[in-house]
Amino acid sequence: MLQKQVIAYDSTLRDGAQAQGVSFSVEDKLKIVKKLDELGIGYIEAGNPGSNPKDLAFFERVGELTLQHAKIIAFGSTRRIGIAVEEDKNIQSLLSANTQAVAIFGKSWDYQVTDILRTTLEENLAMIGDTIAYLKAQGKEVTFDAEHFFDGYKANPEYAFATLTAAANAGADVLALCDTNGGTFPNEIFEITQRAVAQFPHTQIGIHCHNDCEMAVANSVAAVQAGATQVQGTMNGIGERCGNANLVSIIPNVQLKLGVDCIPAQHMTTLAAAARFVSEIANMPFNEKAPYVGHDAFAHKGGMHIDAVNKNPISYEHINPSQVGNERHILVSEVAGRGALLKKLQQIEPSLTKDSADTIRVLEQLKALEHDGYQFEGAESSFDLLMHKLLGKFEPFFSLKQYNVSIFEPSADGLNSSATIHVNVNGKDATATAQGDGPVNALDKAMRKALTDCYPAINEIKLVDYKVRVLDSSQATAAKVRVIIESTDQQQSWTTIGVSSDIIEASWLALKDALEVKLLTDLQVKSV
Amino acid sequence: MLQKQVIAYDSTLRDGAQAQGVSFSVEDKLKIVKKLDELGIGYIEAGNPGSNPKDLAFFERVGELTLQHAKIIAFGSTRRIGIAVEEDKNIQSLLSANTQAVAIFGKSWDYQVTDILRTTLEENLAMIGDTIAYLKAQGKEVTFDAEHFFDGYKANPEYAFATLTAAANAGADVLALCDTNGGTFPNEIFEITQRAVAQFPHTQIGIHCHNDCEMAVANSVAAVQAGATQVQGTMNGIGERCGNANLVSIIPNVQLKLGVDCIPAQHMTTLAAAARFVSEIANMPFNEKAPYVGHDAFAHKGGMHIDAVNKNPISYEHINPSQVGNERHILVSEVAGRGALLKKLQQIEPSLTKDSADTIRVLEQLKALEHDGYQFEGAESSFDLLMHKLLGKFEPFFSLKQYNVSIFEPSADGLNSSATIHVNVNGKDATATAQGDGPVNALDKAMRKALTDCYPAINEIKLVDYKVRVLDSSQATAAKVRVIIESTDQQQSWTTIGVSSDIIEASWLALKDALEVKLLTDLQVKSV
Repeated sequence: MLQKQVIAYDSTLRDGAQAQGVSFSVEDKLKIVKKLDELGIGYIEAGNPGSNPKDLAFFERVGELTLQHAKIIAFGSTRRIGIAVEEDKNIQSLLSANTQAVAIFGKSWDYQVTDILRTTLEENLAMIGDTIAYLKAQGKEVTFDAEHFFDGYKANPEYAFATLTAAANAGADVLALCDTNGGTFPNEIFEITQRAVAQFPHTQIGIHCHNDCEMAVANSVAAVQAGATQVQGTMNGIGERCGNANLVSIIPNVQLKLGVDCIPAQHMTTLAAAARFVSEIANMPFNEKAPYVGHDAFAHKGGMHIDAVNKNPISYEHINPSQVGNERHILVSEVAGRGALLKKLQQIEPSLTKDSADTIRVLEQLKALEHDGYQFEGAESSFDLLMHKLLGKFEPFFSLKQYNVSIFEPSADGLNSSATIHVNVNGKDATATAQGDGPVNALDKAMRKALTDCYPAINEIKLVDYKVRVLDSSQATAAKVRVIIESTDQQQSWTTIGVSSDIIEASWLALKDALEVKLLTDLQVKSV
Repeated sequence: MLQKQVIAYDSTLRDGAQAQGVSFSVEDKLKIVKKLDELGIGYIEAGNPGSNPKDLAFFERVGELTLQHAKIIAFGSTRRIGIAVEEDKNIQSLLSANTQAVAIFGKSWDYQVTDILRTTLEENLAMIGDTIAYLKAQGKEVTFDAEHFFDGYKANPEYAFATLTAAANAGADVLALCDTNGGTFPNEIFEITQRAVAQFPHTQIGIHCHNDCEMAVANSVAAVQAGATQVQGTMNGIGERCGNANLVSIIPNVQLKLGVDCIPAQHMTTLAAAARFVSEIANMPFNEKAPYVGHDAFAHKGGMHIDAVNKNPISYEHINPSQVGNERHILVSEVAGRGALLKKLQQIEPSLTKDSADTIRVLEQLKALEHDGYQFEGAESSFDLLMHKLLGKFEPFFSLKQYNVSIFEPSADGLNSSATIHVNVNGKDATATAQGDGPVNALDKAMRKALTDCYPAINEIKLVDYKVRVLDSSQATAAKVRVIIESTDQQQSWTTIGVSSDIIEASWLALKDALEVKLLTDLQVKSV
């Protein structure tokens, strides 16, 4: 039965760190701990001091932090076969992490005990009981992670439950049921969790899922619906194989949809920012299609959808995006039609209607550009700039007279490219030359050099992302390419686009837009 | 109740194409249709001829294909308010697509009818009934997509069912229940679908889910468990907002876990390749963490996990990866790394063993290249060439002395780039210059010109694909780029790679490899 409160248990720093390509420094881990605490996560499983000695340095540092919500958890295994707990070095490492709470994993699948651990079913129960009793005697709060619990239950339900009983009798505070291989379906998770909840009325039940069937979030929620009160997962679902259950989706599912407290209600609006933060620290590209928190999660493209959302957002939004700190995005595209375009145009020229000659002309020009390979939904700043230009609301800051880029291979010093640019600024010609690491880099540098005297603000612009996509790639080297550039000036960031069969020209167009957006925005701020 | 067979219904080309950043050309769509048919998909919803006139050109072309499994579906809306079906232009466009089967969407949520469509509940029922009856009279097989069915059911179950009844009475073959906003949970989907199955025993029930709660796969499977026999989704889950239900996960979940036929059993092993193919065509990076089909789905990193998997794969694998055409990857295991590499090396030099100095040296060099951004999985010809070079089994056909590429903007005639190349062929210098549509095109032409006298076979090479990916894009215009080129000479096709911070150099490396592969292969054929 659904309980009134569920505690979020994050394992980004332990199980998440098992993912291919992920490795956290001590500093990274401390930053993530602080962010998760701010979000209101209840437990942070932060490392395995037994298997990773580097983690001890982290536990020393994390002990110095003052946390508002989170308890730090050190993770380890049950004692080894046939030795006393006191003599198990890994258990001693676990204690030296000096945390108030620990998590201990042990086997719940009979086959894993006999064939992988290669010990008896009885010894495995003793290993679980001994370890937990010892840790309780040291004053620790203990979560028992029942590894392979669901597979174990399907193979031998009595034995799977016997492992939980051994843990509960030894004083475990939480019995966490693990779908270690990620192969279980929500209806099975629900039924089996329900039985565990009924069997252990005085012990909390937890759930730990993996995403191998693309069901980890649904499985975690099914367990909560069955009465689990601790839900384990990782930020953005990072983890080995297909990932762990994604707390960033589980938390709003539980809090907003089931109406069960999971993190403090007033922190829900920081969820999107926290998800991006962890992605940044892990140096993984953020999934813009991520439920609840991705850019696209509340982005509307089809013309009919946009009309309906304008009438009432519940038409195509399952929650209000602001509840999780996200926002709605109205995309511009071929199918979006005049309604969406009009809203954008009216921001520039309020007198326009959907039948104005200007509206119709802009729509036609947009269609022609999209046919040429432009796609403004990923480049809203170029779109905004274009609208200003098409409506005659843009006074050019400079005009290009010529550029000339040369690439020499082999190069002497690594800077194999040189660019020369001639521009006209306010009636005066300016010229600059620069060397670069590749032709686009050279052109970028030359343009900045040529313009910096008149527009020193361009020195604030930093390019943070540069993407290339080949359109219609069957044309091979004569194919069109689309370049997308993301820029920032500390205050804000913006995205611009260029399309051409020449990658240098496509890059130039996107670079030029990036500069013009900056200069136009600065002008608008001044004139307010 | 679970049925014996479920039909996979793919909407990658229609609902998937609504995704931000996705746009398919007619050629792309035809390629994907063929691949989905080979996989054994039952229905392919391929476009909306009413809202997108470009789709008509596609439907004309697709009619010429001979498909083994799939029926092509043209998608459209119910007739407009207050007009006769015969006079509705969109319905006429739908018919002109000339498909055997169609899908029609209509509203099932009372609020959407009164507040968004702004008509009466009765007129909406008439719109559904009239449209389907008309299409049935034209001999079409009709799927009715009940938009917002689950939200509608929760608001007004009688009316939601009335829309299904209107469709069923008009002769609809399938009633597809849509979770349009993606906000419904599996237990709700199960219960409501079960009621629809019971209510309409003579009509097939379908399911169409979106991923806004990260539950679309679980929801689709829950509907199948409740008795749905048509399951809609898209390849890799592409679609607007957070995506559609991912058929690539649903199919093995249904087929391997529920034991229900979904695609022909013998095609299951092509699933991973089909998923990658669609990702390529859509020019979206493939999700290597994708359940069942991603590289990481059966990748094992932790030492303990690797030991257990070596003892018995079911320890950490929920299925055998070969069932879906995937394979196990053991990470950070030099022995495993060396074993696979050795197989390749022995094809070139049979005397090598895993402890040969050459084997170890090649492994080190490979690691260094991968660290620099090379990824040979997508460029096996470059890999093969590299092995020949590293083992001293490659006699250079030519050497580059210098190239020089210049780009002038504005250009007079569209060919804004010029390339000059100096090569040495068999001790003799050769030089050529060419103009091109962009610098890479110019360089490609110049290289061919310079080499054609000595190696006329290079005229047989056609470049069919040119892709660029920016690595570590936070370095902006100085970031590294990876260029992948696919070439063909009618007999076979091959893929080569180049990596550099300069896109021209990366392209040059891939172009040069493409030529060398051709010349080396021709030589090997001659010497046999």
